[in-house]
Amino acid sequence: MDSLTTPVPDISRSEALRRRYGSILPAADGPWNETIAGLLDHRSVRGFLPDAVPAGTLETLIAAAQSAATSSNMQLWSAITIDDPATRKELATLAGNQKHIEDCPLYLCWIADLSRNQRLSEAEQVDFESLPWLETFMVACIDAALAAQNAVVAANSLGLRTVYIGAMRNDPARVAELLGLPPKSFVVFGLCVGYADPAAKHEVKPRLPQSTVLHRERYDATPETRDRAAYDAELENFSARNEMAATTWTKRMLNRMGPIASMNGRERLRATLARLGFDIR
Amino acid sequence: MDSLTTPVPDISRSEALRRRYGSILPAADGPWNETIAGLLDHRSVRGFLPDAVPAGTLETLIAAAQSAATSSNMQLWSAITIDDPATRKELATLAGNQKHIEDCPLYLCWIADLSRNQRLSEAEQVDFESLPWLETFMVACIDAALAAQNAVVAANSLGLRTVYIGAMRNDPARVAELLGLPPKSFVVFGLCVGYADPAAKHEVKPRLPQSTVLHRERYDATPETRDRAAYDAELENFSARNEMAATTWTKRMLNRMGPIASMNGRERLRATLARLGFDIR
Repeated sequence: MDSLTTPVPDISRSEALRRRYGSILPAADGPWNETIAGLLDHRSVRGFLPDAVPAGTLETLIAAAQSAATSSNMQLWSAITIDDPATRKELATLAGNQKHIEDCPLYLCWIADLSRNQRLSEAEQVDFESLPWLETFMVACIDAALAAQNAVVAANSLGLRTVYIGAMRNDPARVAELLGLPPKSFVVFGLCVGYADPAAKHEVKPRLPQSTVLHRERYDATPETRDRAAYDAELENFSARNEMAATTWTKRMLNRMGPIASMNGRERLRATLARLGFDIR
Repeated sequence: MDSLTTPVPDISRSEALRRRYGSILPAADGPWNETIAGLLDHRSVRGFLPDAVPAGTLETLIAAAQSAATSSNMQLWSAITIDDPATRKELATLAGNQKHIEDCPLYLCWIADLSRNQRLSEAEQVDFESLPWLETFMVACIDAALAAQNAVVAANSLGLRTVYIGAMRNDPARVAELLGLPPKSFVVFGLCVGYADPAAKHEVKPRLPQSTVLHRERYDATPETRDRAAYDAELENFSARNEMAATTWTKRMLNRMGPIASMNGRERLRATLARLGFDIR
């Protein structure tokens, strides 16, 4: 071991679960260690200090990312770091003015990348019949997500914080142009990495009770109505504590999923991806 | 801290990178700790001991999963554990006779779940205009992947091993029927969890060089041809060492992505998902 620098969140399992679930705790006791404490301590951070990340951090995060499982070892993803301030600025603007894209010391774009295997197909003069299907598109997105999540866990273990930027999909064609992406590749999401600004408040956000999310043998929606009422109360308190408009999960979902306008143009994703060379049959 | 049980892989950063990349190592030194050592030590395992996982492991894995980021806190995923031997057997069969689905002590199916928010829409009598789009389908798959990967990291940190089962998508309609899934939900992948059988060989699998996967400012495929030749040699040696037919990455990709037959029916995914209530515009 060259060095041991994991900042272990110094809280018990029960306290970590209380932060994550509020009053609706999972029943059983269970195993616990510093890695799991780190996972439960996750929160998305949008306020970063200007401090650079340590040398070699990027290579370590990518090594962690490449260590994630990948379907049939196809490795259908790539990553690009963006340092150029003008590119960062335009990405921040098209993401709906997300200033942290400009401010964070490390910005990574995660790419669902069928282009590499397309080039392999061309080099070997063998038609890849599996390329133009929803299945393969989905695998590329999932490969990218598994990889990115490993990078997030690694970053957290180094005392860094992150936030995913789904808004790269507001205008995937312009993002592809800015990053010089080949056809059959697109940015699934961005990722800001850096040290959290301690002046900003970043509390662990409660999630739905396990009884809503976890099923045994067969899907069972019975606890859902009860759980949602309890979760609405948790999230209303969370919003109030964190200086947001106090609102329930239900109200947030109605706002986020109700009107098409809240998709910020992402309802055009399929058409745009077709222009970028994706045939999603 | 209730207990600290992380089995830290007792290897240096340089040795962990050598296992992951073979001879084509990333250049820079970088930070290192036991969480990152655990991430780099990942390998998929298909041979499990019959030993049960400790009480409360499932709840801990789900708490880790729920601690992953989720787009706009929509939480578009669920999980189901399957213990019933008859169901396990049928799932193993439809996955192409993957015996480990029957043998592992814990089997989880991860669900891209738009049904919960569909029910919320109905309960609140507000139409969710964002539901029937590729964007939202993709977010559900990514939410499930981020969650599952956190569970995998947590499992690894407890000395457990895992393997993802993409073959749940060979017949998503039958899987949905077996698990009693409501419309607008489907199993993206399964996950076997348990203790690795020490009699089976499970070596860390080398991945593509970082120079192929990681780009700076703009996408650059220049190193790809050189890297692929080197990686082919690495993977040929890996296969030989692990008693598989010695073959290169290139040959594996030609077999896996060339003929449509290698998709095992997954080219029908879009049509099947339409029957399961997914409108992927």
